[in-house]
Amino acid sequence: MKERLYLYDTTLRDGQQTQGVQFSVAEKIQIARTLDDLGIDYIEGGWPGANPTDSDFFDARPQTRATFTAFGMTRRAGRSAENDDVLAAVLNAQTPAVCLVGKAHDFHVTTALGQSLEENLEAIRSSVAHAVSRGREALFDAEHFFDGWKANPDYALSCLRAAFDAGARWIVLCDTNGGTLPAEIGRITAEVIAAGIPGDRLGIHCHDDTGNAVAGTLAAVDAGARQIQGTLNGLGERCGNANLTTLIPTLLLKEPYASRFETGVTHDALRGLTRASRMLDDILNRVPLRSAPYVGASAFVHKAGLHASAILKDPSTYEHVDPALVGNQRLIPMSNQAGLSNLRARLAAAGIEVAPDDPRLGQILRQIKEREDQGYAYDGAQASFELLARRALGLLPDYFEVKRYRVTVERRKNKYNQMVTLSEAVVVVKIGDEKMLSVSESLDETGSDRGPVNALAKALAKDLGPYQASIDDMKLVDFKVRITQGGTEAVTRVIIDSEDGAGQRWSTVGVSANIVDASFEALVEAILWKLVRDGVAPA
Amino acid sequence: MKERLYLYDTTLRDGQQTQGVQFSVAEKIQIARTLDDLGIDYIEGGWPGANPTDSDFFDARPQTRATFTAFGMTRRAGRSAENDDVLAAVLNAQTPAVCLVGKAHDFHVTTALGQSLEENLEAIRSSVAHAVSRGREALFDAEHFFDGWKANPDYALSCLRAAFDAGARWIVLCDTNGGTLPAEIGRITAEVIAAGIPGDRLGIHCHDDTGNAVAGTLAAVDAGARQIQGTLNGLGERCGNANLTTLIPTLLLKEPYASRFETGVTHDALRGLTRASRMLDDILNRVPLRSAPYVGASAFVHKAGLHASAILKDPSTYEHVDPALVGNQRLIPMSNQAGLSNLRARLAAAGIEVAPDDPRLGQILRQIKEREDQGYAYDGAQASFELLARRALGLLPDYFEVKRYRVTVERRKNKYNQMVTLSEAVVVVKIGDEKMLSVSESLDETGSDRGPVNALAKALAKDLGPYQASIDDMKLVDFKVRITQGGTEAVTRVIIDSEDGAGQRWSTVGVSANIVDASFEALVEAILWKLVRDGVAPA
Repeated sequence: MKERLYLYDTTLRDGQQTQGVQFSVAEKIQIARTLDDLGIDYIEGGWPGANPTDSDFFDARPQTRATFTAFGMTRRAGRSAENDDVLAAVLNAQTPAVCLVGKAHDFHVTTALGQSLEENLEAIRSSVAHAVSRGREALFDAEHFFDGWKANPDYALSCLRAAFDAGARWIVLCDTNGGTLPAEIGRITAEVIAAGIPGDRLGIHCHDDTGNAVAGTLAAVDAGARQIQGTLNGLGERCGNANLTTLIPTLLLKEPYASRFETGVTHDALRGLTRASRMLDDILNRVPLRSAPYVGASAFVHKAGLHASAILKDPSTYEHVDPALVGNQRLIPMSNQAGLSNLRARLAAAGIEVAPDDPRLGQILRQIKEREDQGYAYDGAQASFELLARRALGLLPDYFEVKRYRVTVERRKNKYNQMVTLSEAVVVVKIGDEKMLSVSESLDETGSDRGPVNALAKALAKDLGPYQASIDDMKLVDFKVRITQGGTEAVTRVIIDSEDGAGQRWSTVGVSANIVDASFEALVEAILWKLVRDGVAPA
Repeated sequence: MKERLYLYDTTLRDGQQTQGVQFSVAEKIQIARTLDDLGIDYIEGGWPGANPTDSDFFDARPQTRATFTAFGMTRRAGRSAENDDVLAAVLNAQTPAVCLVGKAHDFHVTTALGQSLEENLEAIRSSVAHAVSRGREALFDAEHFFDGWKANPDYALSCLRAAFDAGARWIVLCDTNGGTLPAEIGRITAEVIAAGIPGDRLGIHCHDDTGNAVAGTLAAVDAGARQIQGTLNGLGERCGNANLTTLIPTLLLKEPYASRFETGVTHDALRGLTRASRMLDDILNRVPLRSAPYVGASAFVHKAGLHASAILKDPSTYEHVDPALVGNQRLIPMSNQAGLSNLRARLAAAGIEVAPDDPRLGQILRQIKEREDQGYAYDGAQASFELLARRALGLLPDYFEVKRYRVTVERRKNKYNQMVTLSEAVVVVKIGDEKMLSVSESLDETGSDRGPVNALAKALAKDLGPYQASIDDMKLVDFKVRITQGGTEAVTRVIIDSEDGAGQRWSTVGVSANIVDASFEALVEAILWKLVRDGVAPA
């Protein structure tokens, strides 16, 4: 019989305390739905009354299977719980659960609040009792609990008891400053249970200020706590909260947790975890952290040559869990660390079969190493890797030749005496015996200049004669630039991501001291790859 | 009497296994110097012989106080240690220490290597003995040790014993797949010590696949291990290695570690930690992780209103350590009163005194916010921040006006029928009533094209008439490009670092959808700042 662990998400409240994060009502609704689909038990939606967005969100909140929770604080000094309008706004949000934060550290009661220790206990007691009398499931967030316990364990415990005796369903031990290390969190949680607060009434709320929020949470669970507070992607004030995106797969897939506990998250829902994580980054317009445990794009990437060859024999050699279980995927990139077997696997994935003893494999590896020394990077540009291999193997048709190009960037006054910039590109391409001249400028639909690379991309794709049908649905979707060292000189590396109408996406690379020329190389490669992939015959 | 803990950095080897990371020799030298300044005990430089960059780096490696270490693997099957050319290349790098990785998990020996268990033991024994006989300090990285111990503890232990008996100074317990949780790492490390390998001969090497690399490392130290392996910023294969940038301040500032241990890192060197972390991101052209423990830009940012007001009373209310100890700083976001005092402090640092109640302070804050929304970044471009403030305060002289410019980039065949690129820039500037036309091309001393920004920089600085004396010693020393979001469109942000003959260095920023124009803006700002700083009078 497994024990139940409860998951409590505070992305919409503590997550919103992150520098630069400000959710709209629509975004909060989207995040709440995602959390509910995952199977989170409690969704803390914000602090009703604290700001207009949070108030509007509680009015508009979606129906959820999860217990919707409003956050607030214990009644203020000099007011009864019944007459505190801040507390009233929280209860008026009409959520089934209410989480009230209060002090549990004597120093904070006297320094930050300027109250007596007894006044604070009475505020906890009466506020929790008030919420319970209004029919709510009450939670008490014991702020600064661990620091408070270290300073004055009797007082810290009496704060927990005040909430417990007043009927709180959960007493949450908060490491508000994030400075308590996991071993100490485990020890103190065990001491609290020994002092009489049952573990199945205890929650844990950790922050990542020492990089230990996940480990501290697990230490509290090991000691007996049964509710976990955290956020998607570890969003949260300062260094963030305990990362639920990391904790959930650990609890479901790793021992001793998998055998011992059950949560509201099913193995089926777990396959949506990577998508849920990317959704939040999308909303925040953040580049997803490649190295994120379980869900990061690099989490199952095997770059070292020795690792890659073992993975081909048995993925469990270098993977602690199967990436498919969390909706992620394995990748073996090409780079100068790669060995021959890695190379053959990549070629096979691109539909190119080469015998293991083909001497051209060694040539390709050497070429990759040489070019990476010049500044190329093939693990982020698989399409260019494939083209390099095809060239070496004589499998790249002679589609067209670029005879020359010229790009002009001008900044000058227009007829309204405004400073404007404009770029223009001329590209001359030879296809078979035919020479094609194309010219384009860099203005988009709104008349804004999108720069020289845009003009060049348009001119290049404007007229490729017999190949036009294949490239017409191509679109440049991302453009990354990096100044790097090529040999002894600084060079520019450009990586271009392209997409076609079928949603196929590919990346190509160009390198040059001249940023326009590096971009041009990557653009040409993008077109060549598409022609190869479509099986277009050379003219 | 404190016990000594040893820090071993593998940024240059395991860090280079990160997807998309490829250090140049110059970058490796810069990172090694930074690690040495921090006080790291061992610097693992790479695998000599595995790729050209690593081989070149060992030839060019800097003098360090730290013990320089070459990485390699135990001898291959069917060869003696003396006759294995891969092992020979590692020893030929002539480093004082050598770290050899070998298997410690029976499944890997038979599945990935296809060897007998006894053969593997003999490979460990003879390879370590060979390194020791050549006068090297030998380390043995016991790959997959924790998984191996769980599967077959006797065999895993015999692998450690083989290295130990052969004279290895350190036996490193590696959680190669990153799947072992901290409690298990602590337990198994204690069992290894109980089985007879002393803790002061044990190292720990964790990966972050469950978000527990830091906690797992601490658990091993708690159990008795005395060498810590990790990387700057937690760089490394998949989800990365144990993050030394997080571990070092925890060991120096937090109990029980601070009282119990000493490392090679002094409190003085610790103040360089934030800078070291940013240096690595600079090399990688990565946006530093704001939420990184200790060194992140958000690590000491207090956004919640309640927190911010308590911080003003006593910083220890919401900070577990003083940010100055790690070279970081506290920030209370600009939106409130504390934002204004931050701004005044920054202006004072630039020699601009403004009264606390000056209403233009609020205008400057709003302008910064608006421009950061458009894609500007003033954290990394202090000179542009100063120019923005001077403009708002009427303290920027009218030095010159750029009337127009034009840049051409061409690629075509030269008279020897070789494809060449060439850029040319024309800049027209008005100084007082005088109009100056300048033209430059992009070729360097060797006749190589350095691109359009180079041509533009040269044309702009070629003839600024009365200001020429002040700008003649200016040099563009770094150029960073990032594609970012400005409002709803992708824009390019260019940050340029300039230097003058006196070694003064400053950074300016430009933003535009057009990369050439963004560069031009940053170039003009760089010149303006120099004229202001030199106190040049406008013509």
